[in-house]
Amino acid sequence: MENVRPLILVSNDDGVISKGISELVKCLRPLGDVVVMAPDRMRSGCASALTVNEPIHYQLLRQEPGLAVYKCSGTPTDCVKLAFHTVLSRKPDLVVAGINHGDNSSVNVHYSGTMGVVIEGCLKGIPSIGFSLCDHSPNADFSHALAYIRSMARQVLQHGLPPLVCLNVNFPVGPLQGVRICSQTRGDWTNEWENFAHRGDAHYYWLTGEYINRESENELSDHWALDHGYAAVTPVTVDVTAYEMMNRLDFLLTPETEEE
Amino acid sequence: MENVRPLILVSNDDGVISKGISELVKCLRPLGDVVVMAPDRMRSGCASALTVNEPIHYQLLRQEPGLAVYKCSGTPTDCVKLAFHTVLSRKPDLVVAGINHGDNSSVNVHYSGTMGVVIEGCLKGIPSIGFSLCDHSPNADFSHALAYIRSMARQVLQHGLPPLVCLNVNFPVGPLQGVRICSQTRGDWTNEWENFAHRGDAHYYWLTGEYINRESENELSDHWALDHGYAAVTPVTVDVTAYEMMNRLDFLLTPETEEE
Repeated sequence: MENVRPLILVSNDDGVISKGISELVKCLRPLGDVVVMAPDRMRSGCASALTVNEPIHYQLLRQEPGLAVYKCSGTPTDCVKLAFHTVLSRKPDLVVAGINHGDNSSVNVHYSGTMGVVIEGCLKGIPSIGFSLCDHSPNADFSHALAYIRSMARQVLQHGLPPLVCLNVNFPVGPLQGVRICSQTRGDWTNEWENFAHRGDAHYYWLTGEYINRESENELSDHWALDHGYAAVTPVTVDVTAYEMMNRLDFLLTPETEEE
Repeated sequence: MENVRPLILVSNDDGVISKGISELVKCLRPLGDVVVMAPDRMRSGCASALTVNEPIHYQLLRQEPGLAVYKCSGTPTDCVKLAFHTVLSRKPDLVVAGINHGDNSSVNVHYSGTMGVVIEGCLKGIPSIGFSLCDHSPNADFSHALAYIRSMARQVLQHGLPPLVCLNVNFPVGPLQGVRICSQTRGDWTNEWENFAHRGDAHYYWLTGEYINRESENELSDHWALDHGYAAVTPVTVDVTAYEMMNRLDFLLTPETEEE
């Protein structure tokens, strides 16, 4: 077994041709054999969406020793599921998503296709990490994050992660102050729609919005870390049971008698 | 304030014309004023996906005292966000999703557009519940669930829910043994792709799969409840931080020195 190089599955939600995934693959190749199965187009904001109404397909784009790159017509989650079913010769040792062009901290974890990849890898029992940079531009500068990304991937390959836990790692723009282990910041989005146009009685809106941090003083929160120049590592559970509530819902247990 | 009827926002992922949402609206109308903003087509399996690449639009389908029904071209999550921004006269007292045609217990919570609605309502600070029936058929029989649904909605209107916690409620087919408060069952999907066709080097696959329960003896799990004829109420947190891991990730804090 010691002669076998680690097998790393890579995907993202910005699409297979994005700069972020290209930088990620270069960064990870020294650690093992890399298989990329990534969407053939931009799929930002698609969370853990599945393609359920139509077939999806994949195609090999590039193969060389230690690297195979496939594009897939499905969502990021489809990409992971399909890679496990088709192109991976065995269970991978690590699933990595990114590097996302844009912030996936705080509540964005729920909308993130990057985290869709990571959640799927985790549900399949593989240590999984998502990397994101707080810069949406297509030509974003990932250089300050790369040494951290390789180090974290190597450490997770070595130490593993417990079942049902994965990592959401976000980087600020520019040089880093260091790394902090964080919680998901409480916050929300407001002014979420731009009134784009009307046509008769159909109203057209474009998604936009302003993020409001509801705990900006919490030094353990991921948004605090990013605001202060640190990479934020947020451990994420895929068991979303609110266990502390299980003994507090007895009021739901009895149906009412029909009154109508 | 006592004269103001509760305001209830309803959405789903099966689309505005599905039987499940129609039954849900009938069931909830005695409890308050109902506003429906639901997808104009089937959006199953779209999780908390957002529409980020194009504008979305909505249209009024029907209005009468105590009820307004809108269709929306966006995802279930878009529907909630857009309703808050446009058609709701004030913050609703309750957000309800469903009744979904199909099981959203166990890991399905991650893929569910029904739960996308619920998570969004919860992130906006509103008590939110998703109802699903373990029957995918368009003409599924929801009758056994309706008294429970009205009772639960009424109780949640009265008692509220804590911040960051929402409810995922699944019903078995047929008469109920009762209701159980549950945890998310550990399980996974296998054999997820049907090899649908090939065309040249493009391989086409259709999503399918078999669910494997990894804790079939856990009487607290939601799948156990459903298997034994009970409605399963699973409290779900939208703060997905794995808090117990925050002190166990110190190995990630130091970057390696560049070795290449």
